[in-house]
Amino acid sequence: MTVKITTNLNSIPTATNGVYATGNGPLTEVLHAGSTTLPSLESAAPGTVLVRMLAAPINPSDTLAVRGTYPAPMVKTSDPAKSIPGLEGAGEVVAIVDGSDTDLQLGDIVIPTDAIPGSWRRHIVLPAKNLIRIKSADDKREKLTSAALASLTVNPTTAYRLLKDFVTLKAGDVVVQNGGNSAVGQFVAQLGKLWGVKVVSIVRDRPDFDAYAAKLKAQGAFDVVRPEHVLKYFTEDHKDLYVPLAFETIGGPAGAVLLQVVSPGGTVVSYGSMSGQPIPVSAMALLSRGVILRGFWLTAWKETATREQYQEMLDDLVGYIAAGKIETPEFNEIVVPAGEISKQESDKIVQEVAKAGAEFAGKKQLLVFQ
Amino acid sequence: MTVKITTNLNSIPTATNGVYATGNGPLTEVLHAGSTTLPSLESAAPGTVLVRMLAAPINPSDTLAVRGTYPAPMVKTSDPAKSIPGLEGAGEVVAIVDGSDTDLQLGDIVIPTDAIPGSWRRHIVLPAKNLIRIKSADDKREKLTSAALASLTVNPTTAYRLLKDFVTLKAGDVVVQNGGNSAVGQFVAQLGKLWGVKVVSIVRDRPDFDAYAAKLKAQGAFDVVRPEHVLKYFTEDHKDLYVPLAFETIGGPAGAVLLQVVSPGGTVVSYGSMSGQPIPVSAMALLSRGVILRGFWLTAWKETATREQYQEMLDDLVGYIAAGKIETPEFNEIVVPAGEISKQESDKIVQEVAKAGAEFAGKKQLLVFQ
Repeated sequence: MTVKITTNLNSIPTATNGVYATGNGPLTEVLHAGSTTLPSLESAAPGTVLVRMLAAPINPSDTLAVRGTYPAPMVKTSDPAKSIPGLEGAGEVVAIVDGSDTDLQLGDIVIPTDAIPGSWRRHIVLPAKNLIRIKSADDKREKLTSAALASLTVNPTTAYRLLKDFVTLKAGDVVVQNGGNSAVGQFVAQLGKLWGVKVVSIVRDRPDFDAYAAKLKAQGAFDVVRPEHVLKYFTEDHKDLYVPLAFETIGGPAGAVLLQVVSPGGTVVSYGSMSGQPIPVSAMALLSRGVILRGFWLTAWKETATREQYQEMLDDLVGYIAAGKIETPEFNEIVVPAGEISKQESDKIVQEVAKAGAEFAGKKQLLVFQ
Repeated sequence: MTVKITTNLNSIPTATNGVYATGNGPLTEVLHAGSTTLPSLESAAPGTVLVRMLAAPINPSDTLAVRGTYPAPMVKTSDPAKSIPGLEGAGEVVAIVDGSDTDLQLGDIVIPTDAIPGSWRRHIVLPAKNLIRIKSADDKREKLTSAALASLTVNPTTAYRLLKDFVTLKAGDVVVQNGGNSAVGQFVAQLGKLWGVKVVSIVRDRPDFDAYAAKLKAQGAFDVVRPEHVLKYFTEDHKDLYVPLAFETIGGPAGAVLLQVVSPGGTVVSYGSMSGQPIPVSAMALLSRGVILRGFWLTAWKETATREQYQEMLDDLVGYIAAGKIETPEFNEIVVPAGEISKQESDKIVQEVAKAGAEFAGKKQLLVFQ
């Protein structure tokens, strides 16, 4: 069998550099930076695409998956005991096995829609149907940086769906959220402002609280409130606000208070549990206030969403970024070099990745492939 | 002003016997049986109706309201410090002030739709619009006893709405509920069977569990399970059951387990909290299983329901009772005599009422007006 491959490369790589795991466990023990094999394009099905990854973020779900405490598998390679983590990233189409009806072209920037693409490596091979174009080869809009495009599929998409899928919000409606300083929380505030919704963000007290709150407000938050002031804020100081929706990602009493501050009949959507504690839900909140408590999980959304829904959301988000209407958080870049990677280089990269995993609240970390 | 009154009485009463409260507190201290004044029909608005009450149940919500621990007011009379408890009951129309367009007729059996009609007395005076006919004067169907008709508006209506308002159930779907031996729980099982739904009732262990479970199954329950077996029942022994809906009235861990046993995307409806404990809700149940937790409160339903919705539900329930398709729980009757009530008689009645309030799980108690 002969396949025809359209490519702008001189040769098709059979291996690529990345960060791989040799099992589940502490990050510094099981992670390594180095070469892993790639599936051969010569025997691949029509429409298979080789993507040259530009960047891939390190998300909590990635590092939890490596530790084995999150139900995401990693991508197996043909190297014994080398599995690739990484839920998201962006890359350029550099080779296509002809014969399918894909409209992808060389030079397009795409993101994988697979649940686990194994994005922590320079090259990935996926069927065209598992890739979505977010930027065409001739699109020169400068705000569409690798960092912005590589971090589209987890945080801004979660914020987008939280605001779109549960309550039909009208201009001026108030949404309250805890974890207001998380990446998702910052996108909620930005998208909320863009769509005419007032987002009140709950953020823990800190020495520079006022300056930090001012920054979040400049970004889009309608107001920023400390956890210990939330109840008074909504039930006394701002009783008139209509609050049909709340987002909860902490758990425990921090979640329960949202049931008290949404308006009667309001919905509280849980999309995480930073504290790991269950939310103590009183029957009174559910009965006499008619509050609804439910969850959102992007993985489940992806399983049921159509390609058109996914594409529409990404087009919206890319458009907002290109127009400067929303901005991605600042990233710290961890460079994975080309060529052979020494033990010393590998250790340094893994230590930076492990540090990222330990500091969820700090600056986001981004793997960049040289 | 002269009003025209249609009546089958020789004279319109200006006072009536009942059980009244002289304040909030322990039932044996604040409750008394005796005479209270009635509003005058001579100066009443057109369409005002005098109802001769047949019977009124003693519900937990009534006794909690008397104690002052439930947010239901009592009906004030013109006697200083005499207030009438009682949320439901049934009576016969015995006098109508002419002039409104009501179709109520003398001899009709009606129930009050007011939140707090003050039903614990022989006579009540209400506008026709706050009464719904459940049996016409010439309806001789014998299963429509005073006890059955007087206890329509709290327990069977709650069961009816729980099954109708949250999930569109298909024949063969499974509903799981705790508090399966409560009055509401028994109506859920009976209505479920009638509507082709399999109701699994959770009932605490007891020495005669098997015999009791057999009784509940004969009444309509598909199965009866002890709390400690619930998780295994649904996640191991009967994995194939589709369980889109659960009813929770206990609180605490007994409520949390329902979030684990409903099918993915299922709804748990809380309608009470016997234990008073909050339900510890894990984010995992909400996120990865897509479970929805919400509440039902009959009082809130009544505030938004139309008269037609209310009438349709009562017509359904009365029809089922008349046809022997559902049965009301057995009642113990507490007779309130006509004529003057001695201190001794009053004390005896109040003690029976107080006992009823203390034994929610025992036989239901019914005030019957001689």
